Amino acid sequence: MLWRMARWQPDARGRLEQAALTLYGDRGFDNTTVAEIAERAGLTKRTFFRYFADKREVLFWGAQALEELFVTAVAAAPESAAPLDAVAAALDAAATMFEERREFAARRQQIIAATPELQERELIKLASLAGAVAAALRRRGVGDPAAILTAEAGITVFRVAFERWVDRANRQDLQPLIHESLEELRAVTAA
Amino acid sequence: MLWRMARWQPDARGRLEQAALTLYGDRGFDNTTVAEIAERAGLTKRTFFRYFADKREVLFWGAQALEELFVTAVAAAPESAAPLDAVAAALDAAATMFEERREFAARRQQIIAATPELQERELIKLASLAGAVAAALRRRGVGDPAAILTAEAGITVFRVAFERWVDRANRQDLQPLIHESLEELRAVTAA
Repeated sequence: MLWRMARWQPDARGRLEQAALTLYGDRGFDNTTVAEIAERAGLTKRTFFRYFADKREVLFWGAQALEELFVTAVAAAPESAAPLDAVAAALDAAATMFEERREFAARRQQIIAATPELQERELIKLASLAGAVAAALRRRGVGDPAAILTAEAGITVFRVAFERWVDRANRQDLQPLIHESLEELRAVTAA
Repeated sequence: MLWRMARWQPDARGRLEQAALTLYGDRGFDNTTVAEIAERAGLTKRTFFRYFADKREVLFWGAQALEELFVTAVAAAPESAAPLDAVAAALDAAATMFEERREFAARRQQIIAATPELQERELIKLASLAGAVAAALRRRGVGDPAAILTAEAGITVFRVAFERWVDRANRQDLQPLIHESLEELRAVTAA
């Protein structure tokens, strides 16, 4: 049956992702192997490694796309937009992308919160995202420290809104939560 | 000569710190051993481990004291102070503490910038610091998300000022750089 392994597997990435999330949630990230994820998804380890470098990447493969989305949206904001408004436009774009993945995002967040190694990884990805946004702002002619302060503030707004959004007690959509978080930031920083 | 090892060593911590910084700077953090640090400081490995859990802690042992300083300063701010002003008071207190350690801070920053493992550690310490400041704000009656947004914004202001301060091309003191960074944050977030 070797020929079956080599065949294209419909939505292999999605099946592996679902299997991984279930296993990480049930028995913990550290106690789950790639072999178990592949088996649960009805796929082979080889197929797993075609999509993900390791079991951690199942949770982080979207970071590159998110960074590109942010950078593109900041660049595409009207020339007249203030730096934070350009970042706010990027947050709106990201909210639209995430809205379809709420259940995944909520489960992912729980797994990360339970695993120090993954929290470190998440912090690094967020720092990298802030760096990329700052660079995109500099390309719009924003100087430093305004560029890095605006980028970091924007990522903080996003994180705070995101954490409220994935909280199952919360029924609001991500976009209004981002707007609220941004307004709150403006309020606490008002002189 | 065993009795000498057990004797109190004048400023052993400072000597180990200096030795470690020099070695990390010269040959890299990864290529330096605890034995080499102790030898360079004219002390034993046993003395090293009396002060530091491992070679990474030479660079991070101050984080706990910094967190306590922040938390105490936020708590001590006048009752009437706005959340960000309470955090600004903490940043001022920290600036005073750091001003005496500029050379150490600059060398430490270079070593961290050159070592991904240390960057991760630094991000974790900063996230923990932001969490502690947010908790201190909540104890002042500040609700969420204002508490976490203010804390994160304050830590960002501090980081940006700190990075400019340790840049050897810069001759300004830390406190005015923090004030500038805070004013810049207020400017970029002004509606």
